[in-house]
Amino acid sequence: MGLRTISESRCFGGVQGTYSHASTATGTEMRLSVFVPEQGRSSALPAVIYLSGLSCTEENFTVKAGAQRWAAELGLVVIAPDTSPRGPNVADDPAYDLGQGAGFYVDATESPWAPHFRMYSYVAEELPALIADKFPLRPGALGIMGHSMGGHGALVLGLREPGKFASVSALAPIVAPSQVPWGTKAFSAYLGQDRQLWRPYDATALVEDGHRRPDLIRIDQGEADKFLGEHLRPELFAAACARAGQAVEVHRHAGYDHGYFFVATLIGEHLRHHAELLAKR
Amino acid sequence: MGLRTISESRCFGGVQGTYSHASTATGTEMRLSVFVPEQGRSSALPAVIYLSGLSCTEENFTVKAGAQRWAAELGLVVIAPDTSPRGPNVADDPAYDLGQGAGFYVDATESPWAPHFRMYSYVAEELPALIADKFPLRPGALGIMGHSMGGHGALVLGLREPGKFASVSALAPIVAPSQVPWGTKAFSAYLGQDRQLWRPYDATALVEDGHRRPDLIRIDQGEADKFLGEHLRPELFAAACARAGQAVEVHRHAGYDHGYFFVATLIGEHLRHHAELLAKR
Repeated sequence: MGLRTISESRCFGGVQGTYSHASTATGTEMRLSVFVPEQGRSSALPAVIYLSGLSCTEENFTVKAGAQRWAAELGLVVIAPDTSPRGPNVADDPAYDLGQGAGFYVDATESPWAPHFRMYSYVAEELPALIADKFPLRPGALGIMGHSMGGHGALVLGLREPGKFASVSALAPIVAPSQVPWGTKAFSAYLGQDRQLWRPYDATALVEDGHRRPDLIRIDQGEADKFLGEHLRPELFAAACARAGQAVEVHRHAGYDHGYFFVATLIGEHLRHHAELLAKR
Repeated sequence: MGLRTISESRCFGGVQGTYSHASTATGTEMRLSVFVPEQGRSSALPAVIYLSGLSCTEENFTVKAGAQRWAAELGLVVIAPDTSPRGPNVADDPAYDLGQGAGFYVDATESPWAPHFRMYSYVAEELPALIADKFPLRPGALGIMGHSMGGHGALVLGLREPGKFASVSALAPIVAPSQVPWGTKAFSAYLGQDRQLWRPYDATALVEDGHRRPDLIRIDQGEADKFLGEHLRPELFAAACARAGQAVEVHRHAGYDHGYFFVATLIGEHLRHHAELLAKR
């Protein structure tokens, strides 16, 4: 698996890079951002995959979240993939919440999306193998987190792949896509009308259907987030976890909105959550 | 002086806002970004103006530097103005290093720039008065710093206005614009061909001409910065300061380039430099 270097910059003693590779999962060239702290020169390190939200590429998180400062301190590799396949030969939609930039971390079954929109397989299978091959990662010490649509992805991947991802957290996630407009629009397009087929991609449904994690799932949510009541609804996931006995903490923060100033404020605590769980691996 | 709120977001317990106002100095609507940490709700705080580099607006620093995390810890207000007047009725040039986005912190005397390109007066006079009026600032406790073209601006303003700016620092600054291509191009256009008229806008020349500061000037420079040898040349300023007895520290950092990953890595130490000097005011 070849990795093409788009850019590399020294940052907080480590290296912040942007790379691309030919993805077998999506059939496209996929970009990703990787920060390797200085400790990675001599040791294999725990790592966290960060999944971004609607309309983002691998770049938004990389330049806006300030994660490198904390990752350098904690000795964590941080990987941020793009949010969908892209390119002139890839299906798209003019809306920001469907198509390129809005992969929703599912394997699409419907036309015209099915050939390339396979972000679940990409993040669950191809990406972990790629980064393990190319960067100094400690086997088994991989966490996953995300923001908004990427928080949905992190919860779903964490619940379905507990053996692959040893820690899970989410910032302002879409926790019940089958029940909110962003999710029902995307799932109808990518997965079709049979709502039973949506359940493997809905964190709340996955908990209802028996999926569990042994570790605590951490969620943070801003209370001034304009998408909170319509699209995010963390209370639905919290209630399902309470009924099922799944450990979850939902921290609510007065005054914070949905943007990257919220992500930047909380990213340090989230990376610490992962570092503590991954230290045991 | 009215201030129009473009956006405000909670960030690290404080408020990160973007505002605009009708500038008397430039005759245009000018934008600025202001971070007020939580301490500003009950106290008047020291503040630092950050001047950005070529092609930047007030936004680049605001979203990329991660300054809010340190400013919240140190109790500093941080203000980032735009780098030039802008608008359809403002002179411009297709090059990235002249015209809109490239004000060079001078008061232009030449056509077509003179009517609006008055960034020296804007930063020296109008901006300090505006922020003192609108935000919880402690009188006399104002520092200035900048990056690249903005580092040039900070050094010049700091040397010419030591009574107004109580602390000065720069990241990868243009220290001798009269001697390098970026500066000679801009100064020829904005100030004309008489090089004597450039000296008040050249930090190295200002030191040669007797300008001094009582405090230490801090400069940081990446050694993998592709502009180092042609445009930045910190050794010219260091030599002038050594001859003149002006205290300066130039910290060089192996492997770091010119971009915001370098700024993000050093911004905490720079804000600390300012906080320590401003604490005495």
